[in-house]
Parts: sequence; structure tokens; C-alpha cells
Amino acid sequence: MSGNTFGHTFRVTTAGESHGPANVAIVDGVPPGLPLCASDFAFDLARRRPGQSSLTTQRQEADEARILSGVFEGRTTGTSIAILIENQDQRSRDYSAIKDRYRPGHADYTFDAKYGHRDYRGGGRSSARETAVRVAAGAIAKKLLAAAHGIRVVGWVDQVGDVVAQIGDPSAVHVEEVEQTPVRCPDRDAAERMISLIEQVRKERDSIGGAASLCATGVPAGWGEPVFDKLKADLGKALFSLPAVLGVSYGAGFDVASARGSDNNDLFGVENDRVVTRSNRHGGMLGGISSGMPIVLRCAVKPTSSLPQPQETVNDRGEATTIVTKGRHDPCLLPRFIPMAEAMVAIVLADHMLRQRAVRG
Amino acid sequence: MSGNTFGHTFRVTTAGESHGPANVAIVDGVPPGLPLCASDFAFDLARRRPGQSSLTTQRQEADEARILSGVFEGRTTGTSIAILIENQDQRSRDYSAIKDRYRPGHADYTFDAKYGHRDYRGGGRSSARETAVRVAAGAIAKKLLAAAHGIRVVGWVDQVGDVVAQIGDPSAVHVEEVEQTPVRCPDRDAAERMISLIEQVRKERDSIGGAASLCATGVPAGWGEPVFDKLKADLGKALFSLPAVLGVSYGAGFDVASARGSDNNDLFGVENDRVVTRSNRHGGMLGGISSGMPIVLRCAVKPTSSLPQPQETVNDRGEATTIVTKGRHDPCLLPRFIPMAEAMVAIVLADHMLRQRAVRG
Amino acid sequence: MSGNTFGHTFRVTTAGESHGPANVAIVDGVPPGLPLCASDFAFDLARRRPGQSSLTTQRQEADEARILSGVFEGRTTGTSIAILIENQDQRSRDYSAIKDRYRPGHADYTFDAKYGHRDYRGGGRSSARETAVRVAAGAIAKKLLAAAHGIRVVGWVDQVGDVVAQIGDPSAVHVEEVEQTPVRCPDRDAAERMISLIEQVRKERDSIGGAASLCATGVPAGWGEPVFDKLKADLGKALFSLPAVLGVSYGAGFDVASARGSDNNDLFGVENDRVVTRSNRHGGMLGGISSGMPIVLRCAVKPTSSLPQPQETVNDRGEATTIVTKGRHDPCLLPRFIPMAEAMVAIVLADHMLRQRAVRG
Amino acid sequence: MSGNTFGHTFRVTTAGESHGPANVAIVDGVPPGLPLCASDFAFDLARRRPGQSSLTTQRQEADEARILSGVFEGRTTGTSIAILIENQDQRSRDYSAIKDRYRPGHADYTFDAKYGHRDYRGGGRSSARETAVRVAAGAIAKKLLAAAHGIRVVGWVDQVGDVVAQIGDPSAVHVEEVEQTPVRCPDRDAAERMISLIEQVRKERDSIGGAASLCATGVPAGWGEPVFDKLKADLGKALFSLPAVLGVSYGAGFDVASARGSDNNDLFGVENDRVVTRSNRHGGMLGGISSGMPIVLRCAVKPTSSLPQPQETVNDRGEATTIVTKGRHDPCLLPRFIPMAEAMVAIVLADHMLRQRAVRG
Repeated sequence: MSGNTFGHTFRVTTAGESHGPANVAIVDGVPPGLPLCASDFAFDLARRRPGQSSLTTQRQEADEARILSGVFEGRTTGTSIAILIENQDQRSRDYSAIKDRYRPGHADYTFDAKYGHRDYRGGGRSSARETAVRVAAGAIAKKLLAAAHGIRVVGWVDQVGDVVAQIGDPSAVHVEEVEQTPVRCPDRDAAERMISLIEQVRKERDSIGGAASLCATGVPAGWGEPVFDKLKADLGKALFSLPAVLGVSYGAGFDVASARGSDNNDLFGVENDRVVTRSNRHGGMLGGISSGMPIVLRCAVKPTSSLPQPQETVNDRGEATTIVTKGRHDPCLLPRFIPMAEAMVAIVLADHMLRQRAVRG
Repeated sequence: MSGNTFGHTFRVTTAGESHGPANVAIVDGVPPGLPLCASDFAFDLARRRPGQSSLTTQRQEADEARILSGVFEGRTTGTSIAILIENQDQRSRDYSAIKDRYRPGHADYTFDAKYGHRDYRGGGRSSARETAVRVAAGAIAKKLLAAAHGIRVVGWVDQVGDVVAQIGDPSAVHVEEVEQTPVRCPDRDAAERMISLIEQVRKERDSIGGAASLCATGVPAGWGEPVFDKLKADLGKALFSLPAVLGVSYGAGFDVASARGSDNNDLFGVENDRVVTRSNRHGGMLGGISSGMPIVLRCAVKPTSSLPQPQETVNDRGEATTIVTKGRHDPCLLPRFIPMAEAMVAIVLADHMLRQRAVRG
Repeated sequence: MSGNTFGHTFRVTTAGESHGPANVAIVDGVPPGLPLCASDFAFDLARRRPGQSSLTTQRQEADEARILSGVFEGRTTGTSIAILIENQDQRSRDYSAIKDRYRPGHADYTFDAKYGHRDYRGGGRSSARETAVRVAAGAIAKKLLAAAHGIRVVGWVDQVGDVVAQIGDPSAVHVEEVEQTPVRCPDRDAAERMISLIEQVRKERDSIGGAASLCATGVPAGWGEPVFDKLKADLGKALFSLPAVLGVSYGAGFDVASARGSDNNDLFGVENDRVVTRSNRHGGMLGGISSGMPIVLRCAVKPTSSLPQPQETVNDRGEATTIVTKGRHDPCLLPRFIPMAEAMVAIVLADHMLRQRAVRG
Repeated sequence: MSGNTFGHTFRVTTAGESHGPANVAIVDGVPPGLPLCASDFAFDLARRRPGQSSLTTQRQEADEARILSGVFEGRTTGTSIAILIENQDQRSRDYSAIKDRYRPGHADYTFDAKYGHRDYRGGGRSSARETAVRVAAGAIAKKLLAAAHGIRVVGWVDQVGDVVAQIGDPSAVHVEEVEQTPVRCPDRDAAERMISLIEQVRKERDSIGGAASLCATGVPAGWGEPVFDKLKADLGKALFSLPAVLGVSYGAGFDVASARGSDNNDLFGVENDRVVTRSNRHGGMLGGISSGMPIVLRCAVKPTSSLPQPQETVNDRGEATTIVTKGRHDPCLLPRFIPMAEAMVAIVLADHMLRQRAVRG
């Protein structure tokens, strides 16, 4: 199988290209009885969709998701839930300028190497378009986590270029703060500088990278499996499965490389009859299993590879040529990345929530 | 299932605790006809085993691996290969000082939260002892990759504390250079400073973190799947599944956060009739699929949590107490981490090599 | 996950209820380059659809399948293929007579026991309606098998009530013969008697069971895995996963219970430089691996449980009541069962064809 | 992967050949806290082992199973359990008479076709020797089912040649009755005739087939998944995965082919405030989900293929030759088949018990 399924017990299978008729997700393993309707997807789909602000591509996609199965009288039935998002931006463009040449930073060449031919319209299956149905699936996971344990999964833009946000307590960030700026950074001062930087980069026909942080609060101790399916391993895979992610870390992340054990260990204590740690350099996971402390993750997202300026490349006959990626692209991927990353984190947590039921009943 | 299986087509399943009778791996999906005997595991097991140098724990484990199945007349049969490593260090110690209290940075508390009870001897299933059979399984993967495509997977210590190695071309690093110093850093100058730092830290009854780099050369373009099972996603999961890893990146890694697209894109060219990129900030993977360029990864490893100094903690009744982790521990995990990380990278590559056969025959 | 995915490398995931908006399949693992369009599904969907003859239910469903992804310029891309079949027969009926009571022989009670509530309209997910997308997925598998190895998968009705077909050589049956009668029995004489029997049973407001045979020709020796994923095991699961199947056998089937080894063993010989057996009591599989001889299967299908006559039952409050299943039902499931069974056999064979590529390259 | 793993949540992975050093199973997903020690395997291993009576092969294997992991202080820890059974009968025999020729009815030819070479000693991986560790894994499943729900899984020999047992109520058969005769048939009169028949067949240097029945009592309503992972589908796969099984059925089995719906439907009623059916032609599963009624299965087992008389065959160069299978073989596989079949049924039920926890908590 070509890797279009994710998860063990809460399981998401997807299909769809950027310029085909539709994208589809089948979400399997959702327990029965959860209230659900298509409008539950609207908030996160709106956060992901193009054209939402001057910081993102001006391409317009409505991204309306329909539920085709698995819900009856407003509640999940326990059977598989199919979600359909039709592609509206399918107008017949002229692809002759790109169909035979490889866009730098894109998967055009690697798809050709893998499959022998490819759908060259907008990147086909390699387009971030496929994440729309992930976001819808993630909205189900979020709803399940909130209903069962009051868990919140919140992401925000932590860095754009050299501008880095200052966030005191990650577990205190609420989605309302995140949504107050189009750049999705809850540090208002940093947000303004990020916005300026993105606008400047756009004017210069360039793009800029960044980093996102994510925090899940309310996860009980004991989720995750001890060896290969450590919670950190499944979260790592989930975030790396998103386009443009080149690095993932949790807790103190790469800072541990220069730390000493005596500084790095989080000491245990007791608070309200509950075992806690006094600091959270371990990012809420010890031995790959949740500790009950907030789960804190960070990931690095590269600058958009599509640039409205000529770049040297080769074509599929191995000849040197140049390419200018037309169309409308985000100068910075980060603002629209947030709902995608939240969705993947929520899907992993929902999976391990259900897996833990098999362990302890 | 409690997550003790890894991989889709080349598949590794493990069992074993640090102080039980033995550790076992079953390696499934190895094609028939590969020459294999137990001595193929010796080199990497020796690199992983305790007591190999003054930099590591002085605990002595011989780590002899036996092949119990799947090999006939010196070649693999195509059926599942069972590998057994008996535990020799099973002496009956007095665990009364730790059996009811939670070691900071360890999985004692999270195992109790997950399972309700735990094997407290040496960490049980959460001990890095379980990686011995992963290293043996990885040796099979390495042999398969070398035989089929001449692929080499080499890891080295890139950083210890503030000492960072200078490596010009990661794809030029050979295992012989890596093995020239006990710290496994091919930059001789940095290696000496790393060794001094580790010895100093040990004297101070402390531990120190670091980072490892990995490079796989010879991987053809086209391995990896487009969405969830991107090569970077499976490699990310593999490395995060190892104990003490808090961060994973590939190519330019977290540096992309401050990069511009015009600088970050690797331009395509042609060399010896083969499509290449002129730089390798993409770390050998585009759209999650191998590009034919060297695959370059980096991961952050925390300082050893077990410290020979008293640390505050709580016991399983929620009472404040202190703990001193006795026994013999590595002051820095990095030197012994290298063969573990190489093994996991090789296992992922072997899996995707076989998966690609289903795509293109 | 609630079991809506089938297969390891050629993998089918489905969703959909009988009276929801649509049924969906995502077919993953189809190699790139296979010519495919929606009309490839038409033949088998027409064989499966209600209302095709006087022998089947008179319910009318057009069953038009749309391909939503994974095909570009008339060929598969190697990415996941989504197939959508909208439900047309969704008229709002009055379900008050059945919504709270359990139809004998149906899954109403077991769904309630499993999930706590259920979609009672037409059986919801337990309806044979879900097999429509399996048939479409099977048409892809058939096309792949034919293109790669010239494999044919043909099924026919072998028995209805006490009428049993006489078929000399199962591997000589062609689909054209099967389609010559609406009962799908290539023994013309038996077919006539089956048709009479079904019409009589319908008049008596009753239903009748039967058996189907299946034969796959052209399967090379060597497909199937030696232990749990024996070809016979995966074929057995595939056929038992279809509604109403109570028995599955291959080769000599239950007759082996009274056979002696000296009669039952198929002796090996050589024909056209190819190892063959002189008889085929082993049904084309030895040790669970294909032998190169025709694969011959048989399965027993129960009489339709829905009967247009009153039956005693209980309601969801545990009270005795009666039920008359209205609506239009097949008096015998067998004729429409054939394309479903062929589809499942083809899906298993396509999966093992691709799995064998990983073994031998 | 070459199919050496079975199950979704309760998951068994095996390795081992008949004449290699050992057979191994890793059982993953066993919940923590279940009392377990190696002697729990003894009863069923003794029922499976060769040499147990004059009806079976006189080969002697002690079959002692060791637990290598996953159990601490007499209880399961929740981590993976490795079970080791060393092969004692490894004496170096002269295989020159069979190593290049294909035994009729065996997997010699199909293994060669699949893998290109094979372990020819005693069948290698295709030998029923591999079922020893399945029986041990099944003993864990049985213990879990009994502890959680009081479930009993009992199998017996239902038929040998033309001798068919008369069993009134399958759910009333107890293992003690089964074990009262070496042929494992609780109908004492039929048992005597079976024994005579087997002894006669042995004298005639031949073998005889048979059928086994299985009954699981105490399974609650609601286990099994609605589409591909129907309980009957997973049970069917489990039984077909055993050597020599050519047919599987449940409930009324192949008799439904000649039944009418009005006779075949089991009507619902209420007994002790519990929904029951008044008959059990559905064998305890409706829509593939357990109904709370006893689960009743039957399978056909072919006569032993190894015969102590010359049989015509070909060698691996395609030349006609003859073969006499020396060594000690069972004249009838059925008595030793019972514990294997019980084990596979128990493994499927344990898996679906744990899967149902994810559905309903």
C-alpha cells in the first residue's frame, strides 16, 4: 500500500489530488455516540484554506466538507466516516510551461523517479491540498479528545525568519489568542514583526521559513507504547508527514544537546494529589509515554519552494532550463500550517487514547 | 498491540526486558538468498555494548546474538528470522531503594500510570537494553541494502555539550573514521574535546547531552510514499522511537526557519546523466521521497537521566523522597547511540526498498 | 479501527451505509501506469446491481461509480484511488415498523449490542449495499491481474437448494457462459431448474440458499505466505467477509474428511516443462502457497433473511413482537453474489501478487 | 512482511523451522496483571505434542516452553511476551532421498517456486512444528478470555473418514470429555470406531482425513467488526491458516445451501432478561458480530500427505521419480489438530475482546 493510511485504532485513510475532482478521507475507529456534523469541520477548514488573509495565497477555495457515512441522527455510529471535499479550483490551465520540468524544492522529480509518470497539475498528490481532509479528520479527533478528557490541542506560529515569539507558558495559550492575528502568533509584538517580514518578503518575490509550536493539555499519564510506538515517535511521524517540515522536537528539544543531566531532569513532586514534575523539559513524555504534563512540540517549516522569480532547473529529458512558478502562493507557509499540525497531533492522541483502552479496559 | 512491531514489509518485532532472561527480535520480510550468519551482528553489537571504553558504563555484557530460524545453509530462506540475545547481567540485586520510587527522567512513573505495575529492575522494557536486538535487526537491513544497491548508512557524534564537530561532506564520512575515537566523532580535534568534556562530567557525577548525525549514501531516487509514509516521516518515527531522543531533523533542519526560499531551494542539474541537486539542503528527500542525493539526518540526545548524586522525587504513594541511581551508567549516551540510530535508519530504508518493489516491480 | 480496511499491499478501505448519501472505497497500492476509467467498473456493477432480472429484487439502483483520484490521463498514478457510488434510493420511508425491533437473521441486534445505537434504515452498514464499492475495487484488481499475468477470476452459481450444477473442468468456465442465464449457472440444465426453484420460492414468500464456485486460472506458483497469511487463509477471510457466507472450502473441500491419503494426494508431473499435478484436489494451493494449478473455491450462502411473511422476534426493550420485512428482496442471493465473490478473490490475488514482488524483486 | 504476524490488538508473531534451533512466538497486546507462568502452556502443549498416544506419530518431543519476557512476579506486565520452544529432534539425518524431490501434498514445490530455495529438513517453515508456539500463545488467549468473561473454547474430533460423531449440544461439551479418548471425540461410541479406523489405516500404510468442531461459550454479544474484520472472517482466516485445513464453516454451514429462509432464520426471544435465539443455525454470529449465542465452527482436515508407501513425483530438475516419506507420521491429523484449532479460535476472540474495548471503553 502506498502509505495513505495513518493510525492503528483511530485510523485515517486519504485520497485526492490538487486538481482532481475531490479529496476524500475515511476515518475509521471513531467510537459510537459522538455528536458530529459537517459544521464541526468549518472552523479548522477556514483556518487552513487559501485566501483567508493578505498573508496567504489569494487563491479561493471554499473547502466545504460533506459527511457521507458513519453519522446517523447527529451522532457517530461507530462505523467508518467518509468525508468529501470537492475541488473547486479545477479550471483548465495551461501546464505546458511546467509539465516537463522539475520545480526546485518540489516533488516533481521524485514522483517521476518513483512512478514513471505524474499528475503535474499543481503537484497532484504531493500538493498541500491533501491536508484539507486531514484537517477535517483532525476536527473529529479534537472533538473526541475534548469530550472524553477535556483535552485541548493548540498550535501557534513561534518563529518567522529571525522573529521569534516569547511565550511564557505554552499550556496557557488559547486558540482565541492565536486567532487574533492573521499570522497566528499569540505574542502580539512578535506577530506584528512577523507580518511586516512576510509582506516584505512577498514584495521581494521571495518566501520565508518559520517554526510552529504545539501544546496539548489534559492528556492523562499513561498514553503511548513503550518501544516503537512511543507517543513521541508517533507524533514525530505525524508532523514529519506534513509537507515542508524539516525538523521536529519536543520539550527542551535540541537544547538538550548542550545540557547536563543535573539541569535537564525534571524532578517529580505532588500537586493536588497528583504526581507532577516541577519543570517540563521532558515535554510531557517520559519513556515515550505521556506523563500528565502538557505535551509541547515544535517543528521547523521551510520557506515556500514556489517562487515568482526564475529558477534554474532541468526538464524530464535532463536538459538545463529555467522555471517561474506562476499561480498564487503563500510567501510563508506557517499561518496555514497551524491547523494542519494541530490536526495531526490530535489524530495521534485520539489513536493512543483508544489504544490505551485495550491496555486498561 | 502494544507497539512492539516496526515496519510494513521489512518488519521487526521485539520483546525483552533489561533483567529478564533474554531479548528477542523476529525480523520478517527479509528476501531469500541473502548470506547471513550470527557473526554479521558482531561488529554493531560490539559498538553498542556497555563497557567498550572508559567513556561508557563499565557494566559488562557480551551480547552474543543467536539466529534461531530463517537461515539455511548460510542464506536467508525468506521466512521470519528470530534473533536471541540472552541477558547475562541478571544477578539478584537489592532493588528496595528504587522499586517504589520514581527516577527523574525515567519511565518509572509513566509505566506505573500506564500498566498499574512494572518490572522495576533496571527499567524493564523501558531500558535501552531493548535496543540490542534492534541493532542486530539493523545489521540484516544494512547487509540487504549494501547487497542490493551498495547503500552505506553511517552515523557519528556531531555534538557533545558545546563541542560541535566540523564535517565538510557528510556523505564522505566512513565508519572507519568514526571508529577511530571512542567518542565516535570523525572530527579528530572535536573528538578530543568531547572526550575531555565527558570525563570531566563523569568526575562531577553528572551527565551531558549531545547530537548525532547520520548519512545514507547510494539510496536511489523514488523511495518513500507520498503522504503519511513519507520517507522523512518513517525515519523521524524510527529515530524518535529510540530512548532519549528529543529532536530529529534532516537536511537544513531547524535552520530553514530563518531561511528564504531563494536561498533554501536546491537547484536541479545533471551529472553523469543523472539528475542531481547542486546543494543538499533538502537532505535527500523531496515531497518525502528520496531524491538520489545523500540522506542526511540529525538528532538530539538528552543527557543520561541516571545520576550518581541524590535527586528529589516522589514514591508510588505520592510521598516526597530522594533517590540516588546506583549502578554503572554512561556519562554521555552518544557514543553507544550511534549503532542504534544507524540500525533504525537502515531498517526504514530496507522497508522502503521492498515497498518500492511493489510499486515498480 | 473498526475493520474497514482489507489487504496488505493492495489495500481497500470502505465506508458507507445503505441509506446514507454514498458509498466510498479508497484503493491503495495500485501500481502506476494501469489504464483505468470509470467504465471499467460497469460490467461487474451491472452484475451486482438490484433489479437486473426477475430473479433478483426489483429495487432499482443505477450504481454509477466515479473515480475521484489516482488516475491521470487515463492511467493510474500509483497514488490512492477513491471511488464514489452515490445512493439513489434514499427516499424517506417510514421505518417505525422496524426501527425498534430485531429482524431475524440480520445484524440489527448485534449492532445494537456492539454500538449502543444503529442506523436502522435498510441495515445501515450491515447492508449488502456496501459490497458495491468492493465490486468496483475488485474490477481494478481483475484488470491488474489480467494485465500482469493473464489471470482470469470467474465465479458461478453451483447450487440452489437441492439443484447442483455439473461442471467438468472449473478452469474451462468462461464468464460468457456464466452470463447466459440470469441465475449465473453455466450448466444450462441445472440453471433452468434453479430458476424454477427460485420462482417457486418467491411465490411462497420464502427464500432459498445455495453455493457458489470460483476459479482463478493463470496464477503462477509461489503466491501466498507460509504461516498466517497463507493464500487459502486470506481467500477464506475474504469470502467470509461477504454477507450471508456460512462456509468456504477449496479443492476437495469437506470431502477430504472421508478421504485416504493415497487417494487424496495429487501426484506431481511435468507438462510443457512446467511442474503440474495430475489432479487438483488441492485446489491450486499447497502449504498455503499457489501451485500454478487453477485455484478452485466454493462457498455456501444462506437463504435471504428478509422474508415477506410475519416472523416472531423481540424489540429493543426485550418484548416479544412480530416483524414483516417489507421492501423488495432477492428470493435467492446467489446470482448477485457472484460478482462480489469474484471481486474479493481478485483483491486477495492482487495483494499477493504485489507481496510476492517484495520477496523476489 | 512474509505473513508471520496475526491479529490487530492481541497480536502473535512467530518464527521457526521444524529442524532449526527453536520456535519463537512474540505475543503482543496482553493486558497487564494477568497471572501467567510457563506451566500454563503445559496442558495444551501436551495435547499437541507428538508421541502422546498410539494414534499419533511416535516421534518424541518434550515441547517445553520458556517465557523470556513480559511477565514479572507472576503477572503479565503489558509488554510483549516472548515464548521459546527449543527443537530437540534435530539429529542430523540423511536428507539426500528427499532434498531434491517434491513430496506430494506438501509445500516443497511451492516453497521452491516462491523462494528459489528451501530448508528441506522436515518441511522447514511449512512443517506443523510451527504450531507449537501458536498453541502456547493460544493458552494465553484462553486464560485472558476465561479471566475476563468466563469464556471456554473447546474443540473435538467430529469425523474421521466415514465415522461421524453425534453431539447433541455443542456448548455442553467439556474438555474433560474430549480428553477421555486419545482420538478426542466426546461421543464414546464414535470414538471407538474412529480409533479402529485409524489403526487399520496405519496398518495399510495409508492415512485418513476428518473434521473437527469447535465451540466457544460465554462470548458476549457485540464482538467482531461489521465489514472486512467480521468475527467469522477472522475465525475463518485463523482456521485456514492451520496446515491441512481445506474447509471451514460455522453454524449450519454448507447445509444452508439447501435451506429455506423460513427454516433457516433463528427467531429471537428473551431468556433471563437477555436476548437469545431459539435455535443456533447462525452459529453465534450475525452480520459477522457475536450474538451472545455459542460460537460453533467446523473444519475439514485432509489425510496426512506423508505416506510410508512409494508415490510418484518429480524432482527439482523436472524429472519423474518416486518418493517414500520415511520418518514417523500421524496416520490421522485430527487428534493433534484440536489444540491448534482451539488456540487459533482463542487468539481471534482475545483480539476482538480487546478491539471492542476501543469501541465502547
